[in-house]
Formats: sequence, C-alpha cells, structure tokens
Amino acid sequence: MSYVIGIDIGGTNIVCGLLDEQYNLLGKVKQPTEAAKGSDHVFAKINGMIDQLFAETGKDRSKLIAVGAGTPGFIDSDRGVCLFAGNLGWRDLEVAKLLGEYVKVPVFIDNDVRMYVYGETIKGSVQGVDHVYGITLGTGLASGMVNDGKLYYGGGYMAGELGHVHIDGESTPCGCGMKGCLETIASATGIARQARERITQGEESVMQAWFPEGDLSGLTATHVSKAYDEGDRLAIDIMNYTGTVLGKALAYAITLFSPNALVIGGGAALAGERLFKPMREAIQANVYSGYWDKLSIHQGTLIDDGGLIGSAAFARSRV
Amino acid sequence: MSYVIGIDIGGTNIVCGLLDEQYNLLGKVKQPTEAAKGSDHVFAKINGMIDQLFAETGKDRSKLIAVGAGTPGFIDSDRGVCLFAGNLGWRDLEVAKLLGEYVKVPVFIDNDVRMYVYGETIKGSVQGVDHVYGITLGTGLASGMVNDGKLYYGGGYMAGELGHVHIDGESTPCGCGMKGCLETIASATGIARQARERITQGEESVMQAWFPEGDLSGLTATHVSKAYDEGDRLAIDIMNYTGTVLGKALAYAITLFSPNALVIGGGAALAGERLFKPMREAIQANVYSGYWDKLSIHQGTLIDDGGLIGSAAFARSRV
Repeated sequence: MSYVIGIDIGGTNIVCGLLDEQYNLLGKVKQPTEAAKGSDHVFAKINGMIDQLFAETGKDRSKLIAVGAGTPGFIDSDRGVCLFAGNLGWRDLEVAKLLGEYVKVPVFIDNDVRMYVYGETIKGSVQGVDHVYGITLGTGLASGMVNDGKLYYGGGYMAGELGHVHIDGESTPCGCGMKGCLETIASATGIARQARERITQGEESVMQAWFPEGDLSGLTATHVSKAYDEGDRLAIDIMNYTGTVLGKALAYAITLFSPNALVIGGGAALAGERLFKPMREAIQANVYSGYWDKLSIHQGTLIDDGGLIGSAAFARSRV
Repeated sequence: MSYVIGIDIGGTNIVCGLLDEQYNLLGKVKQPTEAAKGSDHVFAKINGMIDQLFAETGKDRSKLIAVGAGTPGFIDSDRGVCLFAGNLGWRDLEVAKLLGEYVKVPVFIDNDVRMYVYGETIKGSVQGVDHVYGITLGTGLASGMVNDGKLYYGGGYMAGELGHVHIDGESTPCGCGMKGCLETIASATGIARQARERITQGEESVMQAWFPEGDLSGLTATHVSKAYDEGDRLAIDIMNYTGTVLGKALAYAITLFSPNALVIGGGAALAGERLFKPMREAIQANVYSGYWDKLSIHQGTLIDDGGLIGSAAFARSRV
C-alpha cells in the first residue's frame, strides 16, 4: 500500500488529507494558511501537517509517494509553478520544487477548482465520466473542464474563468477590476450581496426581521435559501435571477466545451434546487438540443473533500 | 517525397488538393458533390479526382500515403465516422473505411471547420501557435479550438458550435431549430439577411438603388461591405451590430478556451476591419485583461485552401 497526500491551500486555511490507493480519505487536518509569513512558513507548516496525519493514522510516512496540492490562481501545472495567486501573495513561485524540498517526495500542483472537478470525476458525482465541466460557487465562481479524462488548461493555464464573463445590465465592481462579472451575481457572495442591496433599497423580505439592528453585513446565501423556503418573494426572485443568469452563461460553456456532465460544487451549490431549477431551464432554453440531450447535471458530492481527492489523484497520475 | 491528399467535402462542391511534405498545394480540382446520388458515387468521384490530380501534376500516385477529408457536421475522427451531416444526408457513415476502399490508402476525417483552423496553424496566419481558437463566417458560423497543438473535440465530438449560442433580443429562426442563434446575425448569410430585412422595413440605404426591381434576394454580405465603404448608415450600423454581438460571444470562447490567438476565416471574414473593429472592441470590453493581453487576432490567410491544408496535415499526423 502506498499513500498520497492531497492538499487544498486556500487564502484562509490549508487542509491536508492522507489518501490510500483507492482515494479513501484516511485522515484530514486543517490549519490557518498565514500566507503573510511567507511561502517557507507555509511549506514548513504543510510538512508538519503531513507528519501529524501519519502519526494520527498510524501509517508509515516512508510509503508516501507523492503530494498533490491545489491553490487558487493561475498555475503552470507542467512546471509546478504558481504564476499568480492574489490571495496568497504568490507570483512565479516554484511551489512544486520548494515544497518538494520540505516533503521529500515529488509534488504536483494545479488550480484548486480544477483539482476539485477532477476529484468529482475520480470519486464523486461524475465518477468515470470522460467529459465533465464543473464549477464552484463560493466566494467567487470558477470552473474546470475534464476532457477525455484529462484537465483542460488553454494558453497560459488560464482556461475556464467563467466567473469573469460580463453580464449585460450588471455593473457591480468585481475583484478582477472589471464590472458586472458573472461571479458578482452567481456565487455565495453574489447571492448575499443582491439580498443586502435590495433590502437596503427598500424591498420587503422576511430577512429584515433576522437582522433587527439593520446591519445586514452578516447576511449570507444561507439566509437567502432559508427565506426562499419560507416563500419570501425577494429570496425567490434572487434565486431565479441568479439561476437564470448562471444558466445562460453555462449554455456558452456547454456549447463550447461539449461536456457529457455538469457538476456544481462550492458552498452555494447547497442552495440546490432553489438555484438549479432556473439554471436548468435557462440552459435548456439556450443550448442546441444535441448538447442538452446528452448532458447530466449533478450537485457535487465532494463539497469539502473534492480538492483533496482531486489533488491526490492528480499527483498519483503523474508520479 | 511522399504525398497526401486533402479534401473539403461540402454540401455543394468537393475540392481535392495534392500536397507535398511541406504542405505546398501542387494541384487542386473541384467538382459538384452530388450527395443525392449516394455516398458510393461521392467516394468513386473523389478517387477519380485524385487520379486527375496526379495525372495533371505528373506525380506518382504510388507515393500517396494518406487522404484527409473535412466534412460538415459531427464527426468521430477517432473511428472515422460521420455521425451526422445534414447537407450531405449522411448519418453514422463509416467514411474513412468506405472511402479507403476506393483510394487504397488510409483515410482520416474530421469536421471541416476544425480542419480549416488546424490548417491555419500549420501554414496560415497562426502558424506554429499552440493555442488557437478559430471561427469561420460563411453560410453559418462554426469554430474549432487547437489546444496545445491538438484539436479539441469534447463529448460526442460536438465542441465549439458557437454559431448556436442564443443572442438576447434576437428571434430569427435558425436552421438548427432554435431561434436567435448567433449565426443568424454573425455570418455572411446573417449580414445579408439583416440588410434585406431592414431595407424591406423601410430603412434608407444606397443598396436599394442596386436592386431597382426591389427584389433583394441577390443582396449579399459583399454588398453590405460595399455600402459601408460608401458611408451608408444602414451598412455601418449592421457591421457595428454584427461585430459587437460576435465580439461578446467570442469573449465567452476566449475566457473558456484561453487561446493565444484568434483567427477568423470564411467568406464574411473578407469584410475585414468593417467587422473586426467593433468585434475587437467588444472582446476587449468583455474579457479579463489577462486574456486580452496575450491574444492576437488574425484574419485567416487560407480562406480557400485552409481546409485542404488542414486535412492533409491531419492525415499526415495520423498515418
């Protein structure tokens, strides 16, 4: 039995998982990233987390054959270089080489959303499907395409930034510097923002009563889902609009990439049918029937662990 | 010296070319397809055209090592099967096997637009570029992506039907059965249709004088280009609208596929800057700067011969 470590390096936390040959997750640990302390601090911390995992599970670290890590941003997975990751402060950082010096086994890196989508094809909702397009709806919206079992990168390893297509009639400033990007609407952040703004502009909602002081900063997409279930008109309208806008954008992705399956992950995927129903309707209305007929749509089943499983499988496929 | 034949099998005509190892086009012949007479008739005719090419060029047919052919529709290029080509009346036809029995060398087939885009990367405007997205603007609008030097297919070999994304506010019936598809606007046919409809609805244009009988059925995209050059307001408006709508759709393709170069082929590409200027502006306004900064945009240089060169190179790469 050999082992692989899968890692999700986020702007806030690092999660490390220990996986066996069947990608069973034998153990998982989480620590704050503390990227501001420098990449060496992050890499040393990861090495300590790996020690902890082997100690806690009673497994033998000498059987570790590779480490896979997903990070946000643009990643040259062939050279193992993080080209740019804004929320880690990394630019042209040789992560595979540098982290490899700490962990003493080969390290393979890729974009975290690609790793997540790949994970869903390995052991999740779309296991074994050859052509899968996946998105994650969290703070932002990102996507990855697995084509014929392999991740699609495009020039500059930049493919799939569906969150940054422009939506007609929208002008909310986006973190990327543009305005009206899809992720300002179709993301956990975007759903919450729409609710806060529309309530502030005077629209009625049951959500108002949940924030009696009038400070809506704590309002999240989960509140919008809850209000939706109470029949709240504003919440229903926001979910319908978000799902429709998302579905129209996905129609482009489906037409261009021609996946056989679509998988939706990330925190806002927990909105489930509230969001998926209008999304499905918009997809069907906006794609040629040949695409729709062969498409299956799935809520991701590896919301928390998809990145770890994908990273581990990616590393094992390359070692 | 070995030779390869490149073929473009269209609904109206078949064009065969004889190419050497450097993809120089040594000779070219054209004949009506006559698809209604059956696929055997078409394949026998192609074999005769190949004989004619070798006779006319004085080359030795025994040095022919492969035939590549592009056809419209959905093509399983791995098995050499035409899954569906409406204007040839072919469905699940084993073209590679059947044509191979006539020509006595290995036959490789693919979608005609993919062959064209591949041709542009082999010996055209984007020679040697690794990541190229290409479209052809003719009767319709189709596209192909060359990713890391290889054609992208997606599930069901259906990737890239950009002509059939829906455009908000448009409702012209499309040949695919939907309404308001991009190709009802952004194609040679779509440009001409817009002009005919708007003149019929009473808009003023210099083009009216070119059809004194009032029968606008002969009005083509070339007339719109000519009117544009005379400062005709309607023609300018049509080119601006078409370029803008096309650019917005291309923004999706660029964001999802992340090409380093975009190439525009097909008859309507001859509109050149009249169309490309508003298209470029719409792309730049609708994509993240990281995509725009690395993107070069090219008018195809192999308008007539790209498909032959691409087909020949495709066959040579597989033989």
